[in-house]
Amino acid sequence: MTKIAIFPGSFDPFTLGHYDIILRAMPFFDEIIIAIGENSSKNALFSVEKRLLMIEKTFAQYPKVKTESYQGLTVDFCRQKKAHYLLRGLRTTADFEYERSIAHSNKTLFPELETVFLLTAPEYSFITSTIVREIYKNKGDISGFVPKAISDF
Amino acid sequence: MTKIAIFPGSFDPFTLGHYDIILRAMPFFDEIIIAIGENSSKNALFSVEKRLLMIEKTFAQYPKVKTESYQGLTVDFCRQKKAHYLLRGLRTTADFEYERSIAHSNKTLFPELETVFLLTAPEYSFITSTIVREIYKNKGDISGFVPKAISDF
Amino acid sequence: MTKIAIFPGSFDPFTLGHYDIILRAMPFFDEIIIAIGENSSKNALFSVEKRLLMIEKTFAQYPKVKTESYQGLTVDFCRQKKAHYLLRGLRTTADFEYERSIAHSNKTLFPELETVFLLTAPEYSFITSTIVREIYKNKGDISGFVPKAISDF
Amino acid sequence: MTKIAIFPGSFDPFTLGHYDIILRAMPFFDEIIIAIGENSSKNALFSVEKRLLMIEKTFAQYPKVKTESYQGLTVDFCRQKKAHYLLRGLRTTADFEYERSIAHSNKTLFPELETVFLLTAPEYSFITSTIVREIYKNKGDISGFVPKAISDF
Amino acid sequence: MTKIAIFPGSFDPFTLGHYDIILRAMPFFDEIIIAIGENSSKNALFSVEKRLLMIEKTFAQYPKVKTESYQGLTVDFCRQKKAHYLLRGLRTTADFEYERSIAHSNKTLFPELETVFLLTAPEYSFITSTIVREIYKNKGDISGFVPKAISDF
Amino acid sequence: MTKIAIFPGSFDPFTLGHYDIILRAMPFFDEIIIAIGENSSKNALFSVEKRLLMIEKTFAQYPKVKTESYQGLTVDFCRQKKAHYLLRGLRTTADFEYERSIAHSNKTLFPELETVFLLTAPEYSFITSTIVREIYKNKGDISGFVPKAISDF
Repeated sequence: MTKIAIFPGSFDPFTLGHYDIILRAMPFFDEIIIAIGENSSKNALFSVEKRLLMIEKTFAQYPKVKTESYQGLTVDFCRQKKAHYLLRGLRTTADFEYERSIAHSNKTLFPELETVFLLTAPEYSFITSTIVREIYKNKGDISGFVPKAISDF
Repeated sequence: MTKIAIFPGSFDPFTLGHYDIILRAMPFFDEIIIAIGENSSKNALFSVEKRLLMIEKTFAQYPKVKTESYQGLTVDFCRQKKAHYLLRGLRTTADFEYERSIAHSNKTLFPELETVFLLTAPEYSFITSTIVREIYKNKGDISGFVPKAISDF
Repeated sequence: MTKIAIFPGSFDPFTLGHYDIILRAMPFFDEIIIAIGENSSKNALFSVEKRLLMIEKTFAQYPKVKTESYQGLTVDFCRQKKAHYLLRGLRTTADFEYERSIAHSNKTLFPELETVFLLTAPEYSFITSTIVREIYKNKGDISGFVPKAISDF
Repeated sequence: MTKIAIFPGSFDPFTLGHYDIILRAMPFFDEIIIAIGENSSKNALFSVEKRLLMIEKTFAQYPKVKTESYQGLTVDFCRQKKAHYLLRGLRTTADFEYERSIAHSNKTLFPELETVFLLTAPEYSFITSTIVREIYKNKGDISGFVPKAISDF
Repeated sequence: MTKIAIFPGSFDPFTLGHYDIILRAMPFFDEIIIAIGENSSKNALFSVEKRLLMIEKTFAQYPKVKTESYQGLTVDFCRQKKAHYLLRGLRTTADFEYERSIAHSNKTLFPELETVFLLTAPEYSFITSTIVREIYKNKGDISGFVPKAISDF
Repeated sequence: MTKIAIFPGSFDPFTLGHYDIILRAMPFFDEIIIAIGENSSKNALFSVEKRLLMIEKTFAQYPKVKTESYQGLTVDFCRQKKAHYLLRGLRTTADFEYERSIAHSNKTLFPELETVFLLTAPEYSFITSTIVREIYKNKGDISGFVPKAISDF
């Protein structure tokens, strides 16, 4: 059976932490769909379109990695894509508790869906999209926080 | 002395986790007032009136359980109701740290007030009102997350 | 129905944090049994007998508070005493996660048993029996950490 | 490439939490080796031999699941078995921080090794081998905590 | 070399917890600049001007302590002030994880900047500006939460 | 006044995480005494003498850094050395809660003593002496975990 994983998020913007998770998860799955949830995108810094382009450029050389946006519940998007895996990165204990609530809720709604966690590498473990947005808005240098394809954008 | 407990919250909506706490706390107190704080009710999904009705319907068979809404500080509502106990459920360490700040602050304002904590049952420990609202807004099935009287509402 | 609570622990020694929990829980219960578990008492600093005496002296003026030691499982001691409440203090998130495992396990073994948590007051929240033992063994002054009846012992 | 995962631990004893992780991880891997580390087995309740038998009996119907014991570092055992995945369950934030240290240390020693985490189901999330041992030693009923093949052993 | 520390925050309002950190950090530094970040001041309860006056009044007798507001990134303000130290108080594990992300991000942007942490005293560890604002807005008594110069303001 | 800091620990062995904290704390203090507590040294992997030599070799070029061992309470050693600062590194929330208990206890015993915390750099944040000992005992390569002077020892 084809192993399809959804990597959901708002990715406003996509960071080196996200990038690291995708690279390490690649041997694991036949296809990984990086999926931008449009619900949580109000007041975003970058438009959904721009975020899609940024991520596509980042993974241009990796045919296994697709990029899409979706509306509605993540579990409904998974069903539509016939994906049985959700991929998530873990950095901190706060992350962990938040992800645990979401994962158990998703399993209640879609029992065949398994959430698989990888650890963000230590050197990227402090990076959050919130901090990157703050730096960007104040004209700071975000090149130490996002993939080159994105800081060059 | 009559033991009156206030169970404060926004309950937008009331979940199976809240329900479980009330059922287990019932032998403990002579009266439990489920109290909807109107302050934190801006941008609520369900109106205060609707939330009151939902909770009343849920506990229709339990005369010990009352439902009210209040404005202002929780400690002032406790004083007005002559309640010396606040009842709270604990699910996660994030919950715990938040509740600890609130409880010690309340004790500074009203030293005779004691906050009593029960643990949410493991099978409901991942349910949050925030997640239920998200599911509801996206037309998902909330019946696994809230009491029957509420999902039927 | 008589409300009997068991406050189990090794209490090697009983600290100001434990003392504070008992004082605040007293209005709540008809009887509180401070119960020293002998299982976990290997390599203790103070003998079970000495600990019993220390705690009895501390609560000499409070007839509601009893002191006993027990062997075997806490749930079996609760059954024997017809106690339906376990009383525990919470100081930190590490405490919380440990207590949550114990409480849910106890409920699996004895479903009618409810664990009730109070928060340790902020000014005693850093006190642990382990640290007090370390200070005592190194001839430091433990009077800021334990009830007067115990530091005078 | 054959996907082989090692699920390392002391499993003294193997619990319903461990069992749940293996069942859910099975679609993911071609082979899962449940590996009892003999290093950390001093003062064990059950001998390594007995634990091997208990786990084998538990998974008798699942040919994908093997059971072995090992000495030395987990990374060396992974190299010997040509396994590039470590499988671990996460229950609490304390678990998470401990596992994070181990996982990053393992990656320093064996960069091709990826640790994959699944969440323990909520209803088993409070079960620890330490608590089960305590219940067993005190002649309590462990059938709510371990697979049937083990409580029947 | 003059040791200059920046103590950044929104201080809406400045609490007894903040006050305690400054008093204890004073022997450590030649100059401490309490710096109100204007970015995060939207929807503030007290205006930046009022907060500056409150804090100045609080430290009127301490010439080492300066008060300023700033716009843009904290690291840019540090560079402008030739400050190589950021001073922060730690109360809870949630604080710790948030501060860790910020501190490592700041070090990425300004490698010569060191963040120094002191622990908030236990008796103030539950105080948050958010709770104080809530009490103030509901006409509660904030004198147990903020320095006298501020509650008298 | 001379600023003397004690950096207490068992350092069995001293790791890259410890090393990083000392290097970053150096501009801060006039003298840093790395102090090996002999109390907690039972069942150590390396003898106190060997640990002293390892640390001395590591900091041979830094005259500000001294190495000593001590018996008894850390606060008594601080008094004897006229040190008013304890230096500690923070890696995880578990660290933080443990350190908080110790620091507040030390302040109760010696009110003039301030504990100053720095964050361990992300790339060393997963290293613990416990894990290094495990690797060393199993003949693994510890060069990625300890200073060169120590892995060459």
